[in-house]
Amino acid sequence: MALDGVRAIVFDVFGTVVDWRSGVAREAAPFLARHGASADPSAFADAWRRRYQPAMEAVRSGARPFTRLDTLHRENLEAVLPEFGIDPARVEPTELDALNLSWHRLDPWPDSVAGLTRLRARYIIAPLSNGNIVLMIDMAKRAGLPWDAILGAEVVRAYKPAPEAYLRTAEVLAMRPEEVCLVAAHNDDLAAARRCGLRTAFVPRPTEHGPGQTKDLLPAQEWDVVAADFGDLASLLGL
Amino acid sequence: MALDGVRAIVFDVFGTVVDWRSGVAREAAPFLARHGASADPSAFADAWRRRYQPAMEAVRSGARPFTRLDTLHRENLEAVLPEFGIDPARVEPTELDALNLSWHRLDPWPDSVAGLTRLRARYIIAPLSNGNIVLMIDMAKRAGLPWDAILGAEVVRAYKPAPEAYLRTAEVLAMRPEEVCLVAAHNDDLAAARRCGLRTAFVPRPTEHGPGQTKDLLPAQEWDVVAADFGDLASLLGL
Repeated sequence: MALDGVRAIVFDVFGTVVDWRSGVAREAAPFLARHGASADPSAFADAWRRRYQPAMEAVRSGARPFTRLDTLHRENLEAVLPEFGIDPARVEPTELDALNLSWHRLDPWPDSVAGLTRLRARYIIAPLSNGNIVLMIDMAKRAGLPWDAILGAEVVRAYKPAPEAYLRTAEVLAMRPEEVCLVAAHNDDLAAARRCGLRTAFVPRPTEHGPGQTKDLLPAQEWDVVAADFGDLASLLGL
Repeated sequence: MALDGVRAIVFDVFGTVVDWRSGVAREAAPFLARHGASADPSAFADAWRRRYQPAMEAVRSGARPFTRLDTLHRENLEAVLPEFGIDPARVEPTELDALNLSWHRLDPWPDSVAGLTRLRARYIIAPLSNGNIVLMIDMAKRAGLPWDAILGAEVVRAYKPAPEAYLRTAEVLAMRPEEVCLVAAHNDDLAAARRCGLRTAFVPRPTEHGPGQTKDLLPAQEWDVVAADFGDLASLLGL
């Protein structure tokens, strides 16, 4: 079978397990309306998310010590608001804190919970996300994601796609990299994991970025597994 | 209620959630017999466990960088075998590795799973153990412990009762210390947690150390909650 010898399956989360764009837009909509911004809430979610990689890059480059994603999201929120005509200094900090927690309340894709539950019968399953621990806990409790543990950037103090994020996760699991498989909807995440020796499974999420999505619609390499969704992944693995 | 304002309940594990002495003795028995040692397997478990605090103390004192418990257990196993007339150099390393994993296969006390399941309905629940992450994952999967996350020494790189073990755990949860309650069968663990501002719940485990146990039979301070077992704890909290 494609994943012979694999004992743990770890998951990218934002986009792969949950639909961040709809979730953030849902919570941003009343906020934007309250502050007189007429922008499309999905465009706001996209703009907020656009600052995600640059913020982590400051950590990856060593310019900044490890800082959890909730903090980066909060800084990025203040940075993005003026693009939508809102002065963050004129919004109550508690209101910004509340909106920042929208990332803790994202809905899973329809197949995620059932697929994870099947996979969990044979494998250790855990997020390997750049999201911090309490963000992943809150999300999992709300959505019913049946993780065996919360792994990821905050546990290993490294942001994907830095090699340490993958290698230290295998080390925490006391496994060789080839005993761990990453599931992601993003070819670049899988490519970085493969360079570290992990196994790879691609599950496309063609509407992660909305109806006009052009990237990550197809596998860019011959990944160990390519599945239509998490249920298909479980079936391909004989579960 | 006693724990008003608490949002997360974290648990000591060895002795509090699981019965380490019986579990290690069960797996040590055939090992000892195979190697011609006539010792009581429970005495062997006690002797192995006796080296637990000194090994962690090397890390707590700064004499040694953070080293996960599986590694300390493995070293302690080699150190303890001569006490039982066994030369570790004459045992296959894979056999020692297998016995070392007995700590991953401990049985919960009879009330643990049902009590945790009730507590999980209102609180984030997680181990705050000195056991490392994959040890806690293996144990939870085998025993059905319904943790929301695996927290503890390896996540925060500090061994209890060092204050960092408690304070960094609250920090990872983005909570104030008083929003976190430690459940333990050990008065010294609770005392250290209380000094850091955590709330405390004592659950006695009067046979953790066998039928002749003399310590930790009673609460040594007025802990926030004292419960007979995890089911009683859930009931006292109105669950």
